[in-house]
Amino acid sequence: MSVSCQRPLSTMSHPNDPKLKSFIDVAADSDFPIQNLPYGVFSTPTSAQKRVGVAIGEFVLDLAALESEGLLKVGEGVFAQGGLNAFMALGPKTWTATRARISELLRHDTATLRDNAALRKRALLPRNEVQLHMPFAVAGYTDFYSSKEHATNVGIMFRGKDNALQPNWLHIPIAYNGRASTVVVSGTPIIRPQGQLKPPSADAPTFGPCKRLDFELEMGVVVGGASQMGHMLTEAQAAEMIFGFVLLNDWSARDIQQWEYVPLGPFQAKAFGTSISPWVVTREALEPFRVAGPTQDPTPLPYLQQKGANNYDLNLDVELRADGAKDYAQIARTNFKYMYWSSVQQLVHHASGGCAMNVGDLLGSGTISGPEKDQRGSLLEISWNGSEPIDLPGGVKRTFFEDGDSLSIRGWCQGDGYRVGFGEVEGTILPAKE
Amino acid sequence: MSVSCQRPLSTMSHPNDPKLKSFIDVAADSDFPIQNLPYGVFSTPTSAQKRVGVAIGEFVLDLAALESEGLLKVGEGVFAQGGLNAFMALGPKTWTATRARISELLRHDTATLRDNAALRKRALLPRNEVQLHMPFAVAGYTDFYSSKEHATNVGIMFRGKDNALQPNWLHIPIAYNGRASTVVVSGTPIIRPQGQLKPPSADAPTFGPCKRLDFELEMGVVVGGASQMGHMLTEAQAAEMIFGFVLLNDWSARDIQQWEYVPLGPFQAKAFGTSISPWVVTREALEPFRVAGPTQDPTPLPYLQQKGANNYDLNLDVELRADGAKDYAQIARTNFKYMYWSSVQQLVHHASGGCAMNVGDLLGSGTISGPEKDQRGSLLEISWNGSEPIDLPGGVKRTFFEDGDSLSIRGWCQGDGYRVGFGEVEGTILPAKE
Repeated sequence: MSVSCQRPLSTMSHPNDPKLKSFIDVAADSDFPIQNLPYGVFSTPTSAQKRVGVAIGEFVLDLAALESEGLLKVGEGVFAQGGLNAFMALGPKTWTATRARISELLRHDTATLRDNAALRKRALLPRNEVQLHMPFAVAGYTDFYSSKEHATNVGIMFRGKDNALQPNWLHIPIAYNGRASTVVVSGTPIIRPQGQLKPPSADAPTFGPCKRLDFELEMGVVVGGASQMGHMLTEAQAAEMIFGFVLLNDWSARDIQQWEYVPLGPFQAKAFGTSISPWVVTREALEPFRVAGPTQDPTPLPYLQQKGANNYDLNLDVELRADGAKDYAQIARTNFKYMYWSSVQQLVHHASGGCAMNVGDLLGSGTISGPEKDQRGSLLEISWNGSEPIDLPGGVKRTFFEDGDSLSIRGWCQGDGYRVGFGEVEGTILPAKE
Repeated sequence: MSVSCQRPLSTMSHPNDPKLKSFIDVAADSDFPIQNLPYGVFSTPTSAQKRVGVAIGEFVLDLAALESEGLLKVGEGVFAQGGLNAFMALGPKTWTATRARISELLRHDTATLRDNAALRKRALLPRNEVQLHMPFAVAGYTDFYSSKEHATNVGIMFRGKDNALQPNWLHIPIAYNGRASTVVVSGTPIIRPQGQLKPPSADAPTFGPCKRLDFELEMGVVVGGASQMGHMLTEAQAAEMIFGFVLLNDWSARDIQQWEYVPLGPFQAKAFGTSISPWVVTREALEPFRVAGPTQDPTPLPYLQQKGANNYDLNLDVELRADGAKDYAQIARTNFKYMYWSSVQQLVHHASGGCAMNVGDLLGSGTISGPEKDQRGSLLEISWNGSEPIDLPGGVKRTFFEDGDSLSIRGWCQGDGYRVGFGEVEGTILPAKE
């Protein structure tokens, strides 16, 4: 790997420097200023080849084009691929050096790209003209359950207030393996699943379309490193393996889940679709927004103890557009910082039994709810198991999704005069296949 | 795809014909007569390239070598790969035609290979001189729970006789998603996992090496076809997608499982290793051994009803060699035919909610126990949760595995004068990493 810079690194601003400016105009409320530089995979109407790009303001910077011009020397063909996996596999030093080089090329005072109209035309594409794809091939998908507020809400609904949290919850970042084959990029329609349904009052199950279709507001950790079968990870090793984060919607069929999940956990209730945002925001870009998580009491076992502030102050908005409605209406606003177990703790626990982790593993954080009622990250909680319908504009009410409904999640960290954002993960419900 | 045969197909014996003979001598108790022809991936001390082969008697037939000689025309380089995935993706017609062609080339009355000493030397390698590898890249790994005897035994141990089977068990082929990253080929050592342990009598969990390390005797279905997200499968579609079967040992940490599994199912308890046999026996080779499974009462929901006899009369032997012992001792003998839910029903259910299935998916059958005490497929059942230690030769006793113990599973279908077998899946326990 070699990443050549025009100036010595020591004289360059850090890519996270809030004062950095690009020669590309970026609005203050854009998710994609020069301080962000998230990675995605795209194609264009005139070039169907999937390749790696970086979002900057209203543009996508084509890294494969920069590579072919010799302006980015990371590894032969690493950016001319339909996924970030090969780039991620090069490791954290390459991630840092590459981001620094891209930052340098986009600075207002770097002439290379700024003053080369032909190159700009080739390498900077209007973001609204590209097609975005899955940013990486998902090796394994794991879904955690790490918001104390969410676990408590669900526990109260199904087991009552006194037994809300399971005895293991405060000791283990609880998780299950999900299905990697149905992780899809934002904008992919979600077909309502069918499954076995047995309301508690029925004698036997029937098979039919899910009637309690839900979302779960989550963040996804994109694992960029590997660990060896049989070996644990330290906090530092796990932190280094995290390449970045995406927004994640863990679509859930509550009625299918209720009947199937004892004793081996959710299966078909979670297997029909998981949507992620197309842009992977790097761990490095989120560094300025680190905060400590909630106090953990009891103190976690030594292997889960962390020295770092591993949570992020990351705002999350959820909007629903009912079938036929013109506009989205906000139904929740919360923050990633409320999560009880951090992403690093999740990854350490994941490998703790000797489970090999791979480049391209995706870890869902678990539903992110907050302490307030308007900070709940699922329809199950917002409608309190269907008993408190949500009022939407035009007198429309919802408990769970109807066909044609769309859900959109946005997320961003607010800096001083700029934001480091994720864009959106969106999905629309299509009727079940008969 | 074109597979050229020297004789018209109509005049050829079917590859399953019990009367077929090869020019290679095969013992009557060999797992690999000409009626079997299982696929695997191998390399040799003189050629490290992984490639696809077929087991025949004491030899491996190198399909990449046959392909390069123009004797097998399936698809450019399909057999010169480190996995069966590309071959499987070509679909069931190609699987059938390829098996017929290989059978033809190995017949006693086909001169092509038989009378060409140079080619024989190149393409027929002594099986004890090759290194066997993972036969395919595992796309997703799912583990079912489909033996009524096993589920009942476990239920009695943990919930008592009256509530042994969960209410959903007779309606759903219950399953959870496992971890594909730690599926390994027979012979790979298994490092004892560490994890959170909390015996019911303890106030809080501790972290340390698993004390109740177990195996689960299973068969694995190798899925060779794909299904679309949002779409269900019929019985016939699911049956056609099954490429073949392997022996599978789902290593399990009972103490880790007990503390972690409520409410989202087993996670680290099952993530440290799953062993499979190196030879994939095709569905077609098992056709003569089809039998009906147990009567299903209540009648399954329509989507799970099957017309075919989808179970197999497949003998399974389990042997344990205690640390330091010279020989293996048999600890169980059972049969795949006892499974309540068939592999086809499992696959139909897996896709029923719209879960996309992929080439290379592996479905564990679930622990295979039988109605008798000596037919139990796990140490948990054999030692009745540790209360009835197993007597091994030399006065050695076991409840769960100690470091250095080895477990071997063998499986075969008995024909008239021949057997269609799987070889072995074996693993040895190494001490936990401190």
